[in-house]
Amino acid sequence: MVRVKVGVMGYGTIGQRLAEGVLLQEDMELVGVADIYPTLSVRALKERGMPYDFYNGEPKNDHLFEGLGIPLAGHGEDLIKKCDIILDATAAGVGAKNKELYKKYNKKAVFQGGEANDVADVFFHGYANYEKGVGKDYLKLTSCNTTGLIRAVDCLDREYGIEKLAITIIRRVADPGDYHRGLTNALQVEKAPNHQAVDLMTIMPHISATGILVHTPVTHGHIITVVATPKTDISVENVIDCFKTHPRIRVVRIEDGFLGNASLFKYARDLGNPRGDMYEIAVFEETVVKSGKDIMFAINIPQEAVVIPETMDAVRAAMVVETDRLKAVSLTNEYLGMGKWM
Amino acid sequence: MVRVKVGVMGYGTIGQRLAEGVLLQEDMELVGVADIYPTLSVRALKERGMPYDFYNGEPKNDHLFEGLGIPLAGHGEDLIKKCDIILDATAAGVGAKNKELYKKYNKKAVFQGGEANDVADVFFHGYANYEKGVGKDYLKLTSCNTTGLIRAVDCLDREYGIEKLAITIIRRVADPGDYHRGLTNALQVEKAPNHQAVDLMTIMPHISATGILVHTPVTHGHIITVVATPKTDISVENVIDCFKTHPRIRVVRIEDGFLGNASLFKYARDLGNPRGDMYEIAVFEETVVKSGKDIMFAINIPQEAVVIPETMDAVRAAMVVETDRLKAVSLTNEYLGMGKWM
Amino acid sequence: MVRVKVGVMGYGTIGQRLAEGVLLQEDMELVGVADIYPTLSVRALKERGMPYDFYNGEPKNDHLFEGLGIPLAGHGEDLIKKCDIILDATAAGVGAKNKELYKKYNKKAVFQGGEANDVADVFFHGYANYEKGVGKDYLKLTSCNTTGLIRAVDCLDREYGIEKLAITIIRRVADPGDYHRGLTNALQVEKAPNHQAVDLMTIMPHISATGILVHTPVTHGHIITVVATPKTDISVENVIDCFKTHPRIRVVRIEDGFLGNASLFKYARDLGNPRGDMYEIAVFEETVVKSGKDIMFAINIPQEAVVIPETMDAVRAAMVVETDRLKAVSLTNEYLGMGKWM
Amino acid sequence: MVRVKVGVMGYGTIGQRLAEGVLLQEDMELVGVADIYPTLSVRALKERGMPYDFYNGEPKNDHLFEGLGIPLAGHGEDLIKKCDIILDATAAGVGAKNKELYKKYNKKAVFQGGEANDVADVFFHGYANYEKGVGKDYLKLTSCNTTGLIRAVDCLDREYGIEKLAITIIRRVADPGDYHRGLTNALQVEKAPNHQAVDLMTIMPHISATGILVHTPVTHGHIITVVATPKTDISVENVIDCFKTHPRIRVVRIEDGFLGNASLFKYARDLGNPRGDMYEIAVFEETVVKSGKDIMFAINIPQEAVVIPETMDAVRAAMVVETDRLKAVSLTNEYLGMGKWM
Repeated sequence: MVRVKVGVMGYGTIGQRLAEGVLLQEDMELVGVADIYPTLSVRALKERGMPYDFYNGEPKNDHLFEGLGIPLAGHGEDLIKKCDIILDATAAGVGAKNKELYKKYNKKAVFQGGEANDVADVFFHGYANYEKGVGKDYLKLTSCNTTGLIRAVDCLDREYGIEKLAITIIRRVADPGDYHRGLTNALQVEKAPNHQAVDLMTIMPHISATGILVHTPVTHGHIITVVATPKTDISVENVIDCFKTHPRIRVVRIEDGFLGNASLFKYARDLGNPRGDMYEIAVFEETVVKSGKDIMFAINIPQEAVVIPETMDAVRAAMVVETDRLKAVSLTNEYLGMGKWM
Repeated sequence: MVRVKVGVMGYGTIGQRLAEGVLLQEDMELVGVADIYPTLSVRALKERGMPYDFYNGEPKNDHLFEGLGIPLAGHGEDLIKKCDIILDATAAGVGAKNKELYKKYNKKAVFQGGEANDVADVFFHGYANYEKGVGKDYLKLTSCNTTGLIRAVDCLDREYGIEKLAITIIRRVADPGDYHRGLTNALQVEKAPNHQAVDLMTIMPHISATGILVHTPVTHGHIITVVATPKTDISVENVIDCFKTHPRIRVVRIEDGFLGNASLFKYARDLGNPRGDMYEIAVFEETVVKSGKDIMFAINIPQEAVVIPETMDAVRAAMVVETDRLKAVSLTNEYLGMGKWM
Repeated sequence: MVRVKVGVMGYGTIGQRLAEGVLLQEDMELVGVADIYPTLSVRALKERGMPYDFYNGEPKNDHLFEGLGIPLAGHGEDLIKKCDIILDATAAGVGAKNKELYKKYNKKAVFQGGEANDVADVFFHGYANYEKGVGKDYLKLTSCNTTGLIRAVDCLDREYGIEKLAITIIRRVADPGDYHRGLTNALQVEKAPNHQAVDLMTIMPHISATGILVHTPVTHGHIITVVATPKTDISVENVIDCFKTHPRIRVVRIEDGFLGNASLFKYARDLGNPRGDMYEIAVFEETVVKSGKDIMFAINIPQEAVVIPETMDAVRAAMVVETDRLKAVSLTNEYLGMGKWM
Repeated sequence: MVRVKVGVMGYGTIGQRLAEGVLLQEDMELVGVADIYPTLSVRALKERGMPYDFYNGEPKNDHLFEGLGIPLAGHGEDLIKKCDIILDATAAGVGAKNKELYKKYNKKAVFQGGEANDVADVFFHGYANYEKGVGKDYLKLTSCNTTGLIRAVDCLDREYGIEKLAITIIRRVADPGDYHRGLTNALQVEKAPNHQAVDLMTIMPHISATGILVHTPVTHGHIITVVATPKTDISVENVIDCFKTHPRIRVVRIEDGFLGNASLFKYARDLGNPRGDMYEIAVFEETVVKSGKDIMFAINIPQEAVVIPETMDAVRAAMVVETDRLKAVSLTNEYLGMGKWM
């Protein structure tokens, strides 16, 4: 099997996890990762003994890396040249600039949610619109909240049909370790509708969606409450059973001790997962309720790792490794060990 | 005018505010307040020079008050005997026990949301079902979230008719100064439906409601997102205009700096309000959106003071000071200075 | 008595409290306050019915105030011209610019801790070096932490002599209502020594001081632990008794329910204080301990209001209302009601 | 080599980490772990495929484990019988009860910091008093803060001699995932001196120590500021160099991005460490300062994993695997990979 050569630009929270996600894909090869400064994450890579190659994306900073004894496999453009496809996880807006390089070297690329939609040919979600990404050059992933939200909505929509959504995003305001952003003893309301509802409608145009986002001073996982109007009247059990069949959704119970986002973070750590990461979203079983025909439920989005599976899907779509949606996502699920608990 | 003689049992967060709410009602007289320990709130009353009388609700603790030089106007039963009506703001469950005393002395009483519903003849909300409380002996107020929520829902319901609700309560987990409860870097999900949705249906049985509650580690105000299905299609402007006519609802704008619950707490402090309290709920104007016919919006509930107005309404209902709903609530609004900004 | 005409430039957290502190001084007259935008604090002033005059410090913004119906008594320069002395509570760095105006109109001024030291003739603390401020044109107050810290250290130093200090500042990272700064689930360490230790040595050059500052995600009050080496061996009781004599220091007990900064914020609210403010620092009695000859204790600094008393002192020093240190601070204490609990 | 047979009682935050620490020791064998309920941590063990045996410590709960398909290797007493030594990481107070079983089966045991001191023959710290534990039957580890604190103090004390300490513990109030305890927007002060200062004097009786503890609403690591009086005047560089030689202490720089406890938690995750754990304490280089002869500095204590190395030391002491202090700790350091960055 010829493995897809993948590079990762930007070695932050998402970039690190993309790199290690690629390492687990048997049909991909991680050529290396790039960043422009010797951040703590890059220093950690060195302390680990450089398990994969690092490229400096800013040549004039070579001396900074050299001063710290961080071996460079080359510069950012060297990495691009060696790859079939680039996963761009740079800061919002940088990806659009990098795209010029990808075009120059005739390489495909997958951008993350922070970039503007027009950077890409298609706004992509592995489960919801895999087919649209097949063979495309530039794909943009949905953001972490939208990715997780669409998993749940698409799951119900394919089984029962969903007409309308009203979502409340109770957003974690920073990642663990962030000092450059934060909120203290305050809830912050954003102008509605939130972009996640709008983005969902771009991916799933047959659904009418709106939503409100409220920032909260926590770091482990967003909680989203979803009010969904199905086409036909379905039961609470229907909803729960539907979610239970999805390898990227865990149905968890408050009764068992899954009390909120922090329980899921702890559980991932107790699993011994590297970094304490979790790829799956969770549905809290006891929150699934009805009002009239409307279904309401709460999900948890592990913001640091949730987009990794759909990005792996995006590589297979862009590189036409697989044209069938379900076969493609199954490959990702198998290599990442998703749904093993089922 | 004969003023209604009012006593307050329990001098905690709510009891203190009830006492000072009563002081502002020209048709009421505050006989005094009672508690069972020399808490910091009672010590503060002494430091203020005892602007109103204090009664010890636990005779065997007399020496504790005496040791601190806190003058006692008598015991709890003495207070009850002197009053026409008691506002019971004791800890959840204590009110039911106190009720025996109120019955013994043939006194009316208003209980707070923490008590079981069956402690009272009627589950009361000043705007939504004032008439049901008229002349009753025992009234129970809705809890802080439900009180604020019903203000907003009743406002729309009377104008346009509301059929169905799905609410998400983003709950502050503790009051400022609480050390006996707290949450740190975690969101906590509760079994659905939340009691607020259920309670709302008790007060407004023509509406179908459900909801999910998520605790957040903040202290200044709950945020509730409401998805409301009106009987007829109404516009965002209709909703905003409707709220703007209500003296217990402030329509505020994110654009002006009202970014969330903490902005409203700060604003109340900037107003120079004693304790930095605010009686009104707030609607964030830019959060009012639609999905199909459904209306969605976010409100802020100042949990410490929000029930004071409706409790003043309850006194007038129970004591038959006024039988007309709108006249009754207007008296409260006038004495508390609500709607002055309109 | 001719009252000192005082103006306040900058109507933020400190400016508002300075204005209302001046209103309480019988030997001062508040001419008015100025700011450059219709912030929420300015809107609150309007909602209160303009209890004092407001001046617009940025003439080209007149239309913003007019659009909101906020009456202007003039522009910033008009305010300066009418005053004897200006309390500058503008954002850090702006005071230095404003100083040109104060010089132009030959007015005295008191700057807050955010300005550079060289903006002023003397770095001032009411209790520690009142005499140095007498008759000076430009005084700069110590910052909130330093002001409170010096109160405690000066109290011990005048009685027993202090040689050496090592302080740990456990700093609240934002004020209630702040959305522009925050920290979430993190402690942040700053390069040592902290400026408070350095500033203390400027005011009290006979003491050797150092310290470490750690930011914490809370809003109600800094906690400082102080390790002080006295000249002679003194007892824990000596220390506590010494603090108990100081009208700007409350000695509080954990046993009574004063568990930390939030208890003190709550207590100030329970006192019914406007905004829930407190002027005094607190010493937690049960934290006073010894290691060898060293004394260790913890104090609470209510960051929003703590500098108001010392700023009132500064006005009297600059305007030579009173040349005697103890008489001067007593006037402030009396008008602000400090030490009433003693 | 005959490996020491080790069992772990209590599979919580510490127990899990002890088990996996033992797995890394080439001279030890993990017989299994025990707990009394199918907690989330036990469920995670099952989801991982039972990498090691689990014993049910409460026979009447067998059906709970069976219902979840969690295989039992036996009951708690079976585990004890198979081991040479037990690491007791049960809830505070339970260890004392368990000790009866250990005695019954003539097994040695190591208790954690939550137990009373009299449960053990010696209060133990690998670096500070290894010799005292050699051959003893019952050892009690110091708590997480004390363990980390003593590492730093012992390091300086052996090189330069320390006479006196005054410490401020800025304590994380809960672990990530804790919902049973928490603090919201508050700092909480404890009666002084804190137990850590007292415990340190038990281990290092030649030092005079005191300290104040303040709880803060964060979950990732305690920060301790230490004021240490050395016997002779030493320089800031001496202190830093001394810490740099210690395999269980990382000297980190704010300048490099180590801004506080959350940076260290993130760094451990970036290292790909299981659970994101870190065994080392950290010293923030830029916080090392002097006041007179006194040295002051700030350290970070990763509360979840910090006691694992010293517990491994305790096994070797109790089982007389090694009688030499430095050889013993070196074995732990080697197997846990400590000091690899040096």
